Amino acid sequence: MAKLPNMLSLWNLLVLSLALNVSLILRMVSESQERYIGSSCFKKQGDGHVFHEGSLTISSSLSSNFANSSRANHPQGNGRVINLDHGDPTVYETFWRQMGDKTTITIPGWQSMSYFSDASNICWFLEPELAKELVRLHNVVGNAVTDGRHIVVGTGSSQLFLAALYALSPPDAAEPISVVSAAPYYSSYPSMTDYQKSGLYKWAGDADSFEKEGPYIELVTSPNNPDGYVRRSVVNRSQGLLVHDLAYYWPQYTPISSPADHELTLFTVSKSTGHAGMRIGWALVKDQEVAKKMTKFIELNTIGVSKDSQLRAAKVLRAVSDSCVQERRFQGEESFFKFSYNIMSQRWKQLRATVERSGMFSLPRFSPAFCTFFTQILEPQPGDPVFLQLSCG
Amino acid sequence: MAKLPNMLSLWNLLVLSLALNVSLILRMVSESQERYIGSSCFKKQGDGHVFHEGSLTISSSLSSNFANSSRANHPQGNGRVINLDHGDPTVYETFWRQMGDKTTITIPGWQSMSYFSDASNICWFLEPELAKELVRLHNVVGNAVTDGRHIVVGTGSSQLFLAALYALSPPDAAEPISVVSAAPYYSSYPSMTDYQKSGLYKWAGDADSFEKEGPYIELVTSPNNPDGYVRRSVVNRSQGLLVHDLAYYWPQYTPISSPADHELTLFTVSKSTGHAGMRIGWALVKDQEVAKKMTKFIELNTIGVSKDSQLRAAKVLRAVSDSCVQERRFQGEESFFKFSYNIMSQRWKQLRATVERSGMFSLPRFSPAFCTFFTQILEPQPGDPVFLQLSCG
Repeated sequence: MAKLPNMLSLWNLLVLSLALNVSLILRMVSESQERYIGSSCFKKQGDGHVFHEGSLTISSSLSSNFANSSRANHPQGNGRVINLDHGDPTVYETFWRQMGDKTTITIPGWQSMSYFSDASNICWFLEPELAKELVRLHNVVGNAVTDGRHIVVGTGSSQLFLAALYALSPPDAAEPISVVSAAPYYSSYPSMTDYQKSGLYKWAGDADSFEKEGPYIELVTSPNNPDGYVRRSVVNRSQGLLVHDLAYYWPQYTPISSPADHELTLFTVSKSTGHAGMRIGWALVKDQEVAKKMTKFIELNTIGVSKDSQLRAAKVLRAVSDSCVQERRFQGEESFFKFSYNIMSQRWKQLRATVERSGMFSLPRFSPAFCTFFTQILEPQPGDPVFLQLSCG
Repeated sequence: MAKLPNMLSLWNLLVLSLALNVSLILRMVSESQERYIGSSCFKKQGDGHVFHEGSLTISSSLSSNFANSSRANHPQGNGRVINLDHGDPTVYETFWRQMGDKTTITIPGWQSMSYFSDASNICWFLEPELAKELVRLHNVVGNAVTDGRHIVVGTGSSQLFLAALYALSPPDAAEPISVVSAAPYYSSYPSMTDYQKSGLYKWAGDADSFEKEGPYIELVTSPNNPDGYVRRSVVNRSQGLLVHDLAYYWPQYTPISSPADHELTLFTVSKSTGHAGMRIGWALVKDQEVAKKMTKFIELNTIGVSKDSQLRAAKVLRAVSDSCVQERRFQGEESFFKFSYNIMSQRWKQLRATVERSGMFSLPRFSPAFCTFFTQILEPQPGDPVFLQLSCG
């Protein structure tokens, strides 16, 4: 844990720098009426006033949470607050509007009433249609091996993160297993791990300075949230169990190098297609017993996952795969990933220009790499800083 | 815990008795082609063969779980198994089919993308439309006070049960708070409470024999699952915190005596309308701080609740309320509760007739009481034994 305070200070500084830049961007927006920035973010939360120029209070605390920060945006709240605690990926709404009825789902009142989706599957609450589309999408994008994997669906990848901790923890150990991740890590990992004070697992901080003997769980987030860098495990000891959180391993954020081939990998529609409100995530799990235990966790936690959202996710993912296939066939068409890549690219350009103009801060540069999906060398353009910025548009 | 083994034996006996009777019912069904029994239950899980006459293995273990029992029903499974571990309330599907398009929901691909539903609400992920329909339904049915209550939505009431334990537990106590319920209790309560080995709360068994000093949480399930009796808290000590699980406090199962007026009450659409696949539950919470902590739990657990299912639930609940209002206005119309009451009534008659014919077992009798919803004296007809039976039809 020795490094943590330093890393947090650095991260706080980065957030502060982004905060300051956001106010500059807001000026740019109001002056030039740019089309993209903040076109849709948080529009349901306020009446617009909170984002206008004026006396702004900037909330950059890492310990603030969804509820606090959302309430801070309410028009009746005290002061005007820009929330930099988290993003909301409504940026892709434009694409889905353009798709018209193609991804509209209609569910009659008598459908999907049962608890069960597929009793022959280890994950008995996984809709077969969703399972099919997940395998197809990973094959089309080339970002994950699905052969020999069990799919476990979750209420967002948060639930699957907790299910993974439960499944990987030794059930009868004398003390909880250590959970680590290299700093800077996703700010919710410590609280998600420890809020139940579980006797099975316990947050143990920065993986880089983890020196305890014995079994441990290492969370590898790649591209990393918050800093966007591609990552590998850092502890590398024999008793390590790895959870790969690949929420951002999609072509709009980072060059796809090869299909991810890990023991336990997490994905979510929130970041891939932008449908955060669906709360649908999935895990690709090699070990059958781990998949069973994760399923058991979700059974005890929520007795399955919304069928309505699973069916809707299946339809949306099918449209994403179709758009990729059509783009390859008819070069004029624009796939979902081309669209979202272009948006990310435009926003990074604007962010870099603004930061440069300020002369006070700098943004990291990411090494370009060959992307097997776009079949060209491209620069990474991480999602989170851009989402943060967008939440203030 | 002294009474527990006895109570479990009794309950095992009851399950066994139901199991034997089910095989008799199956004979009745195949001989007389009865219309109702098992018309829809588990139809997605097998090919029908498992339920035909022949050599049947009856699984009556209380410790079996959803996954095991569902796999046991798979046509490729070994032997023929009747699952008596749990029910699946697809029994109401007929009603929702009759409603035609009235409860069909259409969601365009670009809708409900944000994490947020209502940032002005403590429960920031609660869809305002659902909140409105929940209040209306409780007012129409008269089964719960909603004035002065915060609504917290959950991924089924299971998640809200866990959220309630989290919210009510002292965060810094020297030892976990005891969680008790009078036996026989819902068979999942112990495992749901203890599977994370939380340092905040711990299962402490039968409330009737609970004698430990200090704070405790008592779960009051009324009508009770599994035995159907109306219940009140039994410990009644000053440091007790109560969670009322009123999943079955609806007119088709039990006479509504008065609007429930408790500190923390749980409901679910699974049992009220039969839409188990939606995974939507809700809590009515008097204390604002408790509502905040429950919301925080769900934020850390799943970052909210499927918007799609919330919107669908709102539409279904609106139809339920509408059907009640129309029935009162035009006496010929049949409300959802009249329909479901009649199905329950018919199934209890069949169950009682079969058990009587066996001469070996008996079913409990429930005292009739005045129902403020139907404005007449009616006999309770608990849901769970009937759902159990139905899962074998």
